[in-house]
Amino acid sequence: MEVEVKFRVNLEDIKKRLEGIGAKFSHYEFQEDIYFSIPRPKLLRVRAVHNNGKAYLTYKEIRDERNGEFYEVEVEVENFEKTVEILRRLGFEVEVIVRKHRWVYKIGDITFELNRVEGAGDFLDIEVIDDDVHRAKEKIWTVARRLGLGEEDVEPRLYTELLSEASRVKKRGISG
Amino acid sequence: MEVEVKFRVNLEDIKKRLEGIGAKFSHYEFQEDIYFSIPRPKLLRVRAVHNNGKAYLTYKEIRDERNGEFYEVEVEVENFEKTVEILRRLGFEVEVIVRKHRWVYKIGDITFELNRVEGAGDFLDIEVIDDDVHRAKEKIWTVARRLGLGEEDVEPRLYTELLSEASRVKKRGISG
Repeated sequence: MEVEVKFRVNLEDIKKRLEGIGAKFSHYEFQEDIYFSIPRPKLLRVRAVHNNGKAYLTYKEIRDERNGEFYEVEVEVENFEKTVEILRRLGFEVEVIVRKHRWVYKIGDITFELNRVEGAGDFLDIEVIDDDVHRAKEKIWTVARRLGLGEEDVEPRLYTELLSEASRVKKRGISG
Repeated sequence: MEVEVKFRVNLEDIKKRLEGIGAKFSHYEFQEDIYFSIPRPKLLRVRAVHNNGKAYLTYKEIRDERNGEFYEVEVEVENFEKTVEILRRLGFEVEVIVRKHRWVYKIGDITFELNRVEGAGDFLDIEVIDDDVHRAKEKIWTVARRLGLGEEDVEPRLYTELLSEASRVKKRGISG
């Protein structure tokens, strides 16, 4: 199980705090995510990582109301556009497109995904893979508090939810 | 457009004839194809090539009644089982599993796929990629006649159709 908590942050400020608590910078990615319309709690995504040419097909099931626990199956695919075309021809419609700059940091088995999301702002996803959800959340909150983050900073909405309005506007623009 | 004609053949006999007309052996594959239930003329397949560890997600649309013209989109995927799981979780059901030993030969832009299909027999698919279907069929039939193959040797059914009965029996065996 993938367990994560998303916080609204200030990008430059949180980078310094991450380095301050000993988080190691892992890598940077510029991601373009296409989410397809399927009924919740399921999510279907094709991701392009434009700075390294990789692409992924990902299926997720949200396992809790606050969008913090996911069952995930992800497979790398050779071609982003072809994968999108296959899904569209199978009848899936594009729901929203999420473009984000991501800086990944790590401490042990905790992953910090610092995201600048176009049209939505800056966020820090703290993520732990653990089938013991309680233990995973404890790990996440212990390190969140060390970063000065509290309940009031939590953003419970998915990026798809944050962006769905902006994306509808954008798609009207493209098709019009 | 992918244009192909499938012939019932004798494997050893046709290998000699292929070599006799100058076809070059390209490679051998042991393929396992999982076809998912979607309405015709669409086909959805995940293929594992067991002898080289590769896997592919493929979408096809049959464009004619004799199953000889296809629009195809194919993408290589990093993992066969995960891709199958994603499709199953999206609600697609396994329709039939096709296992075949394939010897591929080539002459110019004509591809010969000599298939020993478990449970169905030996077949030669002669294939040309060309948006001019008429020209493609002429190329296929010219070389087919040189191989001693005629209309009476054509198998118009898809492998999925040839195997659907055998597969239903097999699945009952696995689940029982």
